Amino acid sequence: MSTISVPQERKPRLTLVGAGPGDPDLITVKGSKALREATVILYDALVHPGIFEHTSPGAIKRFVGKRSGLHSYSQEEINEMIVRYALSYGKVVRLKGGDPFVFGRGYEEIAYAESFGIDTEVVPGVTSATALTALKKIPLTTRGLNESFWVLTGTTSEKKVSNDIFLAAQTKATAVILMGLKKLGEIVEIYREAGKAHLPVAVIVNGSLPNEAFITGTIADIEAAVRATCLSGPALIVIGEAVKLRLDLNRDTTAGETDVKGLFSELALP
Amino acid sequence: MSTISVPQERKPRLTLVGAGPGDPDLITVKGSKALREATVILYDALVHPGIFEHTSPGAIKRFVGKRSGLHSYSQEEINEMIVRYALSYGKVVRLKGGDPFVFGRGYEEIAYAESFGIDTEVVPGVTSATALTALKKIPLTTRGLNESFWVLTGTTSEKKVSNDIFLAAQTKATAVILMGLKKLGEIVEIYREAGKAHLPVAVIVNGSLPNEAFITGTIADIEAAVRATCLSGPALIVIGEAVKLRLDLNRDTTAGETDVKGLFSELALP
Repeated sequence: MSTISVPQERKPRLTLVGAGPGDPDLITVKGSKALREATVILYDALVHPGIFEHTSPGAIKRFVGKRSGLHSYSQEEINEMIVRYALSYGKVVRLKGGDPFVFGRGYEEIAYAESFGIDTEVVPGVTSATALTALKKIPLTTRGLNESFWVLTGTTSEKKVSNDIFLAAQTKATAVILMGLKKLGEIVEIYREAGKAHLPVAVIVNGSLPNEAFITGTIADIEAAVRATCLSGPALIVIGEAVKLRLDLNRDTTAGETDVKGLFSELALP
Repeated sequence: MSTISVPQERKPRLTLVGAGPGDPDLITVKGSKALREATVILYDALVHPGIFEHTSPGAIKRFVGKRSGLHSYSQEEINEMIVRYALSYGKVVRLKGGDPFVFGRGYEEIAYAESFGIDTEVVPGVTSATALTALKKIPLTTRGLNESFWVLTGTTSEKKVSNDIFLAAQTKATAVILMGLKKLGEIVEIYREAGKAHLPVAVIVNGSLPNEAFITGTIADIEAAVRATCLSGPALIVIGEAVKLRLDLNRDTTAGETDVKGLFSELALP
């Protein structure tokens, strides 16, 4: 691999930064430092605009995410852009919602950049799988109740429900399902067939943002409750006995809670 | 529930803050703000002393963690201290390593404080389960390879290996096992009996700290490799095909890598 002599600040470098689950203050201190030092920031649709307070005013900020109705960049195009910007401008931060390595395809970007001899680093982010549940005071594991949690994708790359959800329905692990809102009907059917109609479920849409919605119920009734709200947006589905503890904590709010804040206007992008 | 009129800064409040996996800069911006505003900080053994740079100089800092050879506080004693400090001093931050809701018993502290009418809030932290793997560029899921990851405890409250590990060994989910170093022999035996002797494994001890150790291998040979290093400390065990991708990335380091940085001196506490 050949090396080119460049000023230190122009040395090609890729830093993958997890932006956290929504609230811009849920980025790490290390992530905010990386943003301040970045020459170029390539960011996703799930990144809150408030996070740009952490960036240098002179930095190039480019949206490379997917938004319905607009051109979306393929993973290959994003990989190319990372390399091109890093070779031309030096410090590239690739800013991704949640954690870049939790269903974030961060590994593909790292591997591609490294194949061009570009130094890479990952700054982990708070993943929505654990953060949104913690913010809602839902314990993912509880002594005596269960001993693990299982993080799954609701929609696989073949646009199907993951086979792992059938397995998760057989265990006592709390299931935390990302990208599953459109598959909620299929998911509850899998649990119903496993004899778990009574199991508590929570659905968090636009978690940690002003337009957050929080819906609870059971496998038997959650789908109707969610459909009634006409919600869309990034969602987390949490299934397991542990969800009930959250409801115990808030005895004034009974199961079947629906808490929809604000309007579902799309966030303005900078 | 009775209310007492007190100055706003003395209003009893419990904020559970996740300190992240080790590196003090892996706390969130929101967590560091909560630390700066705290009157009292009750912190755990796994919290890095560098994190106290984020605190107010006048804050009361009390260690309530477990350290071998010294008195360790029971969960009941910690719950009592939280309530006593909150009622006397106002803003209590309970600072826990990783994320307070991932095997952190944070829920028990929240529930106890709320039973006294104390307002509570959770500031999620970066959990070691996802962060230490991301820092090591190990993808937990990869398109075409697997679709989920399963976070388990190696040692249950009965000091046994969790039954869920037997189930995890039957699936393609990447298993991320916390608190499992002393049970590594039993864990690899479970995987061996499931016919998975070839499966890649990574062990990260003291992850993200200067004395981090990183050992890779397979189910067949990881135990001997770890035993040879005589390591102890907080550890993460990662089992699954996805671990192999990390090894592919670093083709100069072959499988069977052992990378032990620095000495295993205990960190000085403030």
